[in-house]
Amino acid sequence: MTGLDKVFIGKIVNSLSGLKVEVFERGYVTVRGRQIIDIGNLADKCECLDKKFGNVERIQLKNSQILIPGFVDTHIHAPQYPNCGLGYDKTLLDWLDAYTYKLERVYRDSKFSKDVFDKVVKKCLDHGTTTACYYGPLFNSANVILTDSVEKYGQRALIGKVTMTQSPYPDYVEGEEEFMKNITEFVRHVLSRQNDLIQPIITPRFALSLNSSQMRQLGDLAESQNLHIQTHIAENKDEIRMVQETYNKPYARVYDDAKLLTNKTVLAHGIYLTDEDLDLIAERNTGISHCPDSNTCLKSGLCDVKRLLERGIKVGLGSDVSGGPVPSIRQAMKSALDTSVHLSFIKDNYEPLTYDQVFCLATIGGAEVLHMQEKIGNFAVNKEFDALIVDVDVESCQVDDVLDRTPLEILQKFVYCGDDRNVVGIYVAGRKGSF
Amino acid sequence: MTGLDKVFIGKIVNSLSGLKVEVFERGYVTVRGRQIIDIGNLADKCECLDKKFGNVERIQLKNSQILIPGFVDTHIHAPQYPNCGLGYDKTLLDWLDAYTYKLERVYRDSKFSKDVFDKVVKKCLDHGTTTACYYGPLFNSANVILTDSVEKYGQRALIGKVTMTQSPYPDYVEGEEEFMKNITEFVRHVLSRQNDLIQPIITPRFALSLNSSQMRQLGDLAESQNLHIQTHIAENKDEIRMVQETYNKPYARVYDDAKLLTNKTVLAHGIYLTDEDLDLIAERNTGISHCPDSNTCLKSGLCDVKRLLERGIKVGLGSDVSGGPVPSIRQAMKSALDTSVHLSFIKDNYEPLTYDQVFCLATIGGAEVLHMQEKIGNFAVNKEFDALIVDVDVESCQVDDVLDRTPLEILQKFVYCGDDRNVVGIYVAGRKGSF
Ligand SMILES: [Zn+2]
Ligand SMILES: [Zn+2]
Repeated sequence: MTGLDKVFIGKIVNSLSGLKVEVFERGYVTVRGRQIIDIGNLADKCECLDKKFGNVERIQLKNSQILIPGFVDTHIHAPQYPNCGLGYDKTLLDWLDAYTYKLERVYRDSKFSKDVFDKVVKKCLDHGTTTACYYGPLFNSANVILTDSVEKYGQRALIGKVTMTQSPYPDYVEGEEEFMKNITEFVRHVLSRQNDLIQPIITPRFALSLNSSQMRQLGDLAESQNLHIQTHIAENKDEIRMVQETYNKPYARVYDDAKLLTNKTVLAHGIYLTDEDLDLIAERNTGISHCPDSNTCLKSGLCDVKRLLERGIKVGLGSDVSGGPVPSIRQAMKSALDTSVHLSFIKDNYEPLTYDQVFCLATIGGAEVLHMQEKIGNFAVNKEFDALIVDVDVESCQVDDVLDRTPLEILQKFVYCGDDRNVVGIYVAGRKGSF
Repeated sequence: MTGLDKVFIGKIVNSLSGLKVEVFERGYVTVRGRQIIDIGNLADKCECLDKKFGNVERIQLKNSQILIPGFVDTHIHAPQYPNCGLGYDKTLLDWLDAYTYKLERVYRDSKFSKDVFDKVVKKCLDHGTTTACYYGPLFNSANVILTDSVEKYGQRALIGKVTMTQSPYPDYVEGEEEFMKNITEFVRHVLSRQNDLIQPIITPRFALSLNSSQMRQLGDLAESQNLHIQTHIAENKDEIRMVQETYNKPYARVYDDAKLLTNKTVLAHGIYLTDEDLDLIAERNTGISHCPDSNTCLKSGLCDVKRLLERGIKVGLGSDVSGGPVPSIRQAMKSALDTSVHLSFIKDNYEPLTYDQVFCLATIGGAEVLHMQEKIGNFAVNKEFDALIVDVDVESCQVDDVLDRTPLEILQKFVYCGDDRNVVGIYVAGRKGSF
């Protein structure tokens, strides 16, 4: 091992595909540069660390800490951050008009954009989001500023300049003749940075923001350059009715006919998908971003994640700021649990999700949804090291502790009563964050 | 006005009986010693503050701050604090065995007791709980330590030594011959302190922890000294079945027959109360502590608060630590909203609670449940000044802000995405806390 290697020693909780966790009571993860080169358990208390790890830099976790894979936020609207917590007396379409579009128009202002995007990226990292899939603003210039913020703070991200040719505001919309030019330029800009932590993502706002032929042009662009795609689906009953009236075909089919359903597509919400929709989504190996707190705050509905998982559909978690109030995947895990427990009250023989399962959705599940499972999402040899050190004995946090805890107890405490203060260390591609 | 007066100037949101809020955009509250002596709006921007307030000490709130009444936590188990976040893979009765009783037995240890109770009281205050209704431990000595902690930090509290003559543990139970002696002594001890912020509360654990005649002795004690009472009711279907099998009468009737249903009684949960139960509870003017996060974490059920309110029953909020994971009434408000929204998905024509309504439950509602509405719960002339300064522009908190906000927007942001860091000032009976 070289002097650039480091080894993390302590309690480790790893997530695995298939909603399983793997616990290392006296574990270690060895990292070379960006990559994980070894993971395991120390043989016993007497094992000589000097002999095993030589002069590799050792990071010894405290007893109240666990090492876990970094969180993946599969759906977050960066420009909506200032609206966090506001307007939940409305439902989706009214809220969009009263709050969202009004605010998003302000991102012509580059100083305001920089202030907000620096905050958003920094807050996401504070909360443990090592990878974020951002909905950006409409304007190219503001998306460049968002990309600057992501790059500055060293986050892994997909950045989606929003495409929309229809909106209630004549000054917050793109023309038929310019929308493809805008997105093509932004994609070229991001790729020209050659920062392999940052990629563009094609982002038709949702089915009512463009017509079929415009969506198809985006699908063609994504196909030609093998790009990621994200959009919204089946979030709200009014929206679904309007999509049905406009296109007169199943919601998932609207996107599929525009070549927008791929194994690199992220569909946010999917509360009211029909079995027919789900069959198509499963066939395309498209992932769904479950955003439970947003679905509650905007009164959209209860999304039955187990139904999606049972059909083999990939599921990750999304904060959906500012439909959701906090840019935190910890909170998304708690909300996913709450939603699942409430579903179990109204469905027969329904086993709700457990804390270890939502932890998998928050990590490896999100990586699968972003089609990054070969690179990130959990600890495995040759994957990049995206990780968090979580400590439940931080005196100034919401709930501290007085007793020794097992790795899974520490995880439980973090999921149910933690917050950003419990995230005491964060690593993206092997690099330690300091924000 | 004397030199001991002080006046708070800024944005104020007050709660009123009947789930209404009152907003002062340019408000003031004048406090003399413990009491509020004036409240209102400044006439206009030009009004001369020197002329109006003379040399009274002025506390000027920032633009990002609101002054609100302090929170009332109507149900919290102090000894369970170390278990916050643990064991929610179980339901009530299993969880009691595996976690709760096991931990509660440790409070024979006075050092451990002091460590935990100092933490609990301090955390409650951090989260803005100016008044707490505590379930204490079984042992008198540990309850004295809890009372010390409350007194030291200056919180307003009801302290309930738990009474239980039946439990799964032979070393965690009181004998038939000693339980009345224990509670009588503890009541005498608390009253002897002559601290009018602290009162004892008679606390039969729940209907299966004592028999009818033992409960009746507690009812007689409460009546003879005009004491508060608290217990649990209709939280879980298994518990309800066992109570029915044991007493063969309606749940509320079990308590009423023991003289335990009064206008100073707090009943925790009440998820599954029948109409007959509710009629009796309403007739007795007994209050209910709604503990939504606990009801979700322990998979107990969805409590329909609107049904209780429509029958004129008093309702406050409880954290129910550690059935609930965090000693925070802010979180109880968010959970109450989530629960109510989810009820609206499954009931026809059901209008869920709104953020301003849960804010009323958290303050004046809680005061009514504790029969303290003449003294605390909101800002009114002659009431004692229990108050919080809430700031949504704290850079280090979960979500900060960049824009000017109205008082109600600040309240919304706090309810949906705030935490203890947003509580930047706390006052109990006019005295500023510094913890
Ligand atoms: Zn969204
Ligand atoms: Zn309780």
